[in-house]
Amino acid sequence: MFRSLQLIPKIATVRKIYIRRGKRVKNRVAKKIMSVTALSCLLVGSTGLGSKQVHAEEHSDKEVKNVIFMIGDGMGPSYTTAYRYLKDDRSTKEMEETAFDPHLVGMQSVYSYDPYHDGGEDDEKENIPDSAATATSMSSGTKTYNGAIAVDLEKENTKTVLEAAKEKGLATGLVATSQINHATPAAYGTHDEDRNNYDAIADDYYDDMIQGDHKVDVLLGGGTDFFERDDRNLAKEFQKDGYDYATTTKEMVKSKSDQILGLFAPVGLEKAIDRPEEQPSLEEMTTTALEKLKSDEDGFFLMVEASQIDWAGHDNDVVGAMSEMEDFEKAFKKAIEFAKEDGETLVVTTADHSTGGFSIGEGGPYKWDPAVIQAAKRTPDFLARQIVEKDTDIEKTLTQNIGFELKAEEIQAVKDAMANASEEDKMMEVDNSIEQIFNERSGTGWTTDGHTGVDVPVYAYGPGSDMFAGKIDNTENADNIFKLLGLSKSEDGGTLADTNVSYPTGVLVGALIAGAGAILVLRRKKSLS
Amino acid sequence: MFRSLQLIPKIATVRKIYIRRGKRVKNRVAKKIMSVTALSCLLVGSTGLGSKQVHAEEHSDKEVKNVIFMIGDGMGPSYTTAYRYLKDDRSTKEMEETAFDPHLVGMQSVYSYDPYHDGGEDDEKENIPDSAATATSMSSGTKTYNGAIAVDLEKENTKTVLEAAKEKGLATGLVATSQINHATPAAYGTHDEDRNNYDAIADDYYDDMIQGDHKVDVLLGGGTDFFERDDRNLAKEFQKDGYDYATTTKEMVKSKSDQILGLFAPVGLEKAIDRPEEQPSLEEMTTTALEKLKSDEDGFFLMVEASQIDWAGHDNDVVGAMSEMEDFEKAFKKAIEFAKEDGETLVVTTADHSTGGFSIGEGGPYKWDPAVIQAAKRTPDFLARQIVEKDTDIEKTLTQNIGFELKAEEIQAVKDAMANASEEDKMMEVDNSIEQIFNERSGTGWTTDGHTGVDVPVYAYGPGSDMFAGKIDNTENADNIFKLLGLSKSEDGGTLADTNVSYPTGVLVGALIAGAGAILVLRRKKSLS
Repeated sequence: MFRSLQLIPKIATVRKIYIRRGKRVKNRVAKKIMSVTALSCLLVGSTGLGSKQVHAEEHSDKEVKNVIFMIGDGMGPSYTTAYRYLKDDRSTKEMEETAFDPHLVGMQSVYSYDPYHDGGEDDEKENIPDSAATATSMSSGTKTYNGAIAVDLEKENTKTVLEAAKEKGLATGLVATSQINHATPAAYGTHDEDRNNYDAIADDYYDDMIQGDHKVDVLLGGGTDFFERDDRNLAKEFQKDGYDYATTTKEMVKSKSDQILGLFAPVGLEKAIDRPEEQPSLEEMTTTALEKLKSDEDGFFLMVEASQIDWAGHDNDVVGAMSEMEDFEKAFKKAIEFAKEDGETLVVTTADHSTGGFSIGEGGPYKWDPAVIQAAKRTPDFLARQIVEKDTDIEKTLTQNIGFELKAEEIQAVKDAMANASEEDKMMEVDNSIEQIFNERSGTGWTTDGHTGVDVPVYAYGPGSDMFAGKIDNTENADNIFKLLGLSKSEDGGTLADTNVSYPTGVLVGALIAGAGAILVLRRKKSLS
Repeated sequence: MFRSLQLIPKIATVRKIYIRRGKRVKNRVAKKIMSVTALSCLLVGSTGLGSKQVHAEEHSDKEVKNVIFMIGDGMGPSYTTAYRYLKDDRSTKEMEETAFDPHLVGMQSVYSYDPYHDGGEDDEKENIPDSAATATSMSSGTKTYNGAIAVDLEKENTKTVLEAAKEKGLATGLVATSQINHATPAAYGTHDEDRNNYDAIADDYYDDMIQGDHKVDVLLGGGTDFFERDDRNLAKEFQKDGYDYATTTKEMVKSKSDQILGLFAPVGLEKAIDRPEEQPSLEEMTTTALEKLKSDEDGFFLMVEASQIDWAGHDNDVVGAMSEMEDFEKAFKKAIEFAKEDGETLVVTTADHSTGGFSIGEGGPYKWDPAVIQAAKRTPDFLARQIVEKDTDIEKTLTQNIGFELKAEEIQAVKDAMANASEEDKMMEVDNSIEQIFNERSGTGWTTDGHTGVDVPVYAYGPGSDMFAGKIDNTENADNIFKLLGLSKSEDGGTLADTNVSYPTGVLVGALIAGAGAILVLRRKKSLS
């Protein structure tokens, strides 16, 4: 039940070579001068202030060397809450927190500029965003039209934080469970006026270079269909240039090169609950990416996307959605673990938008039953494929893969869908009939097979995390990262830090003023005493 | 379309007289000693850190004298986002922020302990909360069963922040657009094992005293049906004890007494868009409450509820919901204005839960049209009452009150509902048919006529606001207020502050340690130089 975006004819886009800027010198002086101030703030914090406040301050004197930006595609507030219900230990009254919860810092608005885009005659002027527009906002700090891959309303390329990081000598990585040339990762590493130009986007990863280097050192996800084509084999081209190429978990783990292209499925990976061993978990891909990227002494920028929370949402499939949330949480834990050990890594985690109008509650009752979801051994998609493509016995397929006793009418509904739907609709109808069992029994509501406009949660950990606090707009994610990494946003090499005081500089200036203030106050006290 | 809660037979509950504790002495010393630390933190903050961080720190050295706790009943994240869409100036590309946005500090979980309550044979074990359980959590810091008014799972009274505030000599107020004995305000000022015992709850406001004083000095909302009864006239009883009694906006504004009972409707007030002049806006009630309460030199606790965002949500009425959001935003602005001038007032604003599974997006399209909602001059409820009760001309009633051209089939649907529904269902069916026009045209989706379990946003301004930051549980609202106001939570007079370092004390200790640290560091530097 995916919504197809209108095809916009591809126009050759101009690629620019960004000017490499001097490597960052770590400001050890700033760190030392900060000590008095940091001590004051920390001590006040730890005795009386809220934990989040302390949390931010613990990091405020550190520089940001690495950024891990994690996107749960479609992961609106209902998803993060539902996942807490799902993971709750029901032998205790309290509902335990998820790994995300302790790091919540605020929410972000997600709207795009699609209503201000001239998309021709049938232009819908959509004011609910798609993943391409939101990813462009988060990667470049620029609002744009739905479908745009790092191009603005005028279809000019927008510089991304990944490009700016590479330009400055940092290592870069993109990890996703969709094809790696899908909208979200694409909007960090490529440019295209239409998200549907999958081949061109895949080409762009190889062709569009920065000072002779490929932009992205680590590319992990799905997409052999787009990288190993009849007309061009990008996998071979990347290998020729020193990249390892992996198509299984084993090959990925064995890889020794700092640069890797890993494509584990023709298009997207299987959903976590259905995923075969040969396809890595998001956690495994994140671990591999971190292993490779951390060796760069200049730091790294890594974007990790749990792409298919959104796909499950489009499908109104609560089993798939929660399975993907679990995949994401494990990867998130790995990132936080890395950041805790490292001390100079910022982890920001958010969604691009919410999907499906997913609700914890449907049709009246004040009950939502996660046990129903936990009883699924496979997604409805997987079961529908078994039934429709492999012609397996319907009742057997259902009972073997669902851990509660099915009602006769539930089984019958699947049989009816199989018997009555047209060949074209059979897969969708069988899938829907199985999804319906889980939605109805769990009390899950949906309003659309598209996106919704609701604000989404923002989680942040590490130095600079306080900059993401409160209600922010999705563009602020990029703006903050440009600032925190001291990157150049504009094409002419000027940095945001030129007009706005950069984070480390701000800390230094603040510390100097504070230090001077403290000395003055203490001297004055002395002369008065 | 309201959901009725099972009736539990009322048992006489034991009321306790709380022991009055000594008045708070303002800690001027702490404020002075804080100056160095505050200066350091502020300067660091203002140069490099996020605005929210600075915001919290601006207030961190102030004591909390007054608390305004504002609840948008049912106001989940879709409501606050949709309201931003609604108020957006569409002549600019940017979506302007609402009055709430700059004060977002996090989100809260809202689940109740209903699944752990023995409610007898037909007990539903609901894991989606109702307003009684959530209000008890926010007023008392205690999780309880759905339907409980400030009683715990054992049906023992839970002490509320309002009661503790009164016990300590603070002035107290409750403002709502529902009847003032409805679940949310009731859970601050009364105790009952069942929210449906409306008469007993109304009685409780008068009968249950603290050291010979009524608990609540300012009671503003609806509810003459419950306060002026055949068997008892509580309005007269309150007047006898020195309260002014107002039943119109004018009477409320003219009131001179510091204590007032204002009841402006038999049950709930009309929704803001339908409200006659005689019924005050939430802003007007908030203003009156603040005028009266601020004269108490010990400070005050005021709870303000926009009760009918929830009612509109139950009804799946997007026009009513947005009208109530507007009423709430105006009252919110008034509270923030007061807090800004006062400097010692904490304003916390949140929802108790979300209602209706409201989604900004329905049925596929990526469009949500607030202009449709803005075209309504009245709620569908109001129009349905006109049509069904006053037998007005359907087409005329609709066209006169809806600012877009109605399609013939839309008018026909209302006519069909009027003609075909049973007498019993006529009002509901006509109402639904009008709501459907707005839902369909605006692209608004709903999943239930009940509540949903999603986390809700938390906004905070003023001293102590940082304690509400991040992901909190609804019980932490009460716990924080007990601490910040130095109130006694337990029946025996022990305060939370006895076991946990209180906020002002924490600041003092932190400042002392920080000061000492600074002197040591500076001395050491001197001896080294």
